[in-house]
Amino acid sequence: MNPTTSLPKQVKIVEVGPRDGLQNEKDTISAAVKIELVDRLTLAGFANIEAASFVSPKWVPQMATSAEVMERIARRAGTIYSALTPNMLGFDAALAAKADEVVIFGSASEAFSQKNINCSIAESIARFEGVAKAAKEHGLRLRGSISCAFGCPYQGDVPLDAVADVVGRMRDLGCDEIDIADTIGVATPRKTQAVMQRAIGAFHVGGLSGHFHDTYGQALANIYASLETGIAIYHSSVSGLGGCPYAKGATGNVATEDVLYMMQGLGIATGIDLDLVVDAGQFIAQQLGRKGSSRAGNAIATKRLAA
Amino acid sequence: MNPTTSLPKQVKIVEVGPRDGLQNEKDTISAAVKIELVDRLTLAGFANIEAASFVSPKWVPQMATSAEVMERIARRAGTIYSALTPNMLGFDAALAAKADEVVIFGSASEAFSQKNINCSIAESIARFEGVAKAAKEHGLRLRGSISCAFGCPYQGDVPLDAVADVVGRMRDLGCDEIDIADTIGVATPRKTQAVMQRAIGAFHVGGLSGHFHDTYGQALANIYASLETGIAIYHSSVSGLGGCPYAKGATGNVATEDVLYMMQGLGIATGIDLDLVVDAGQFIAQQLGRKGSSRAGNAIATKRLAA
Repeated sequence: MNPTTSLPKQVKIVEVGPRDGLQNEKDTISAAVKIELVDRLTLAGFANIEAASFVSPKWVPQMATSAEVMERIARRAGTIYSALTPNMLGFDAALAAKADEVVIFGSASEAFSQKNINCSIAESIARFEGVAKAAKEHGLRLRGSISCAFGCPYQGDVPLDAVADVVGRMRDLGCDEIDIADTIGVATPRKTQAVMQRAIGAFHVGGLSGHFHDTYGQALANIYASLETGIAIYHSSVSGLGGCPYAKGATGNVATEDVLYMMQGLGIATGIDLDLVVDAGQFIAQQLGRKGSSRAGNAIATKRLAA
Repeated sequence: MNPTTSLPKQVKIVEVGPRDGLQNEKDTISAAVKIELVDRLTLAGFANIEAASFVSPKWVPQMATSAEVMERIARRAGTIYSALTPNMLGFDAALAAKADEVVIFGSASEAFSQKNINCSIAESIARFEGVAKAAKEHGLRLRGSISCAFGCPYQGDVPLDAVADVVGRMRDLGCDEIDIADTIGVATPRKTQAVMQRAIGAFHVGGLSGHFHDTYGQALANIYASLETGIAIYHSSVSGLGGCPYAKGATGNVATEDVLYMMQGLGIATGIDLDLVVDAGQFIAQQLGRKGSSRAGNAIATKRLAA
């Protein structure tokens, strides 16, 4: 290894807490709380916040207030507010809500696809053609999210070819950005690099993002390993919001505060104020009535109290 | 970055939970519990366990049972049982307790040394000459532990020259192994590599170990970054035992389970059975009446319950 190998000089952090993080919460969180959370994150400087999901409220009741949230947040020019759109109904709602980016999704695991939506990967992605076309027509950014790219709760290993194949399908749909997601948090650094390099071969490094879960504590090591491959977009969740649905009690999305602390130490610019993110994390943890699960967030908050 | 760069093919994990981990616990833990913990770790396959500390019980009451623990554990041939020895009194006790290795210590931070023991770094290390000489005479391994090598709670930055200087002093005392410790968990990957490379320049790569704390969630990323410099010995603590004394409620030593999960994923041999370590972690967490703080440990335990 040659530690002088250059890492990206700046990265984009996509804050997914308000959507991917909160959607698994059992207790209903009011629109007002979600709005305050998004507004705090906006003020902290994020260039991209996943704020809404226009899925059926029958599937995900927590996201039923998405239209209200999107309407009442105080937007900052230059920040992209994204919304998950599973179909044309969702797309129309996202368009009406003035989403800047719509997110479509698929899995790299055939077993996961079959088990969850009862169709093949290829079929599931083809279903997004309408959404993709509509996004282009209306000048919205299009993001494709690929789950189980590093492992699957049903089939275990996921072949690199399968990842490259889905990346190619997302690219052909016209995605501006494609997420390579470790849904169950099983990746380790060299596996991460192998997957990322295949993804880079099928798209372009600037359009790929890493979405890591900290279920096994590996997320930050995987992000560092991804930086070494040139990947410069990362998803994270303030206060580590978002448990893993396949392992109750286990940690979900990597905490934004931990990622920002590492980027700061690496001298990589993010444009985000870590202290304001710690505040936002404390706000939402308090609202949820529990301790936040960001290690850096907790350490910084404790240090403040001691000072 | 070149992901084909080789990492070490095997590493030694030094389990520090029974000493460094437990010593900060407020409630007294019985010798029987400590013995069962060490025995479980022995059976899991560790080649090195930090099991005792022969300091004055006035300083660290939790370690008052060290002699009993060392006497009653079921030792495995080939496993090194280490003991902290602050002075000749401690050395004599460690020798009587049949410790395989004695551990002396110093700081890379002048401010930390002055604040904690009221003398300079150089002076503090010179005081260990007697212990070092006695260790050699009796054929015991000698390990030197360097705290605050990546940052200090009092002076902040710690110069690389200061780390190299202390490594040199430990080497000159005859240390077989030297620990580079991030006592307050502030290191990030590139800083880690810079410190490790200076340490390697002052000793030899095979004799150096990385001791990382997960206070800011950076430990595993730092271990991965250290692997890239060739460092092949790491300290960790089962169930993440060991809070950080400078930030109450903050995480301390990196959890052994998380480290082992990463090594497994990287194809790096440790000789340790992760499942047995998860069991040991659950045992001690239960004894302490709280949830363990290893993410991999918790995820694996949850997965078992679901199966």
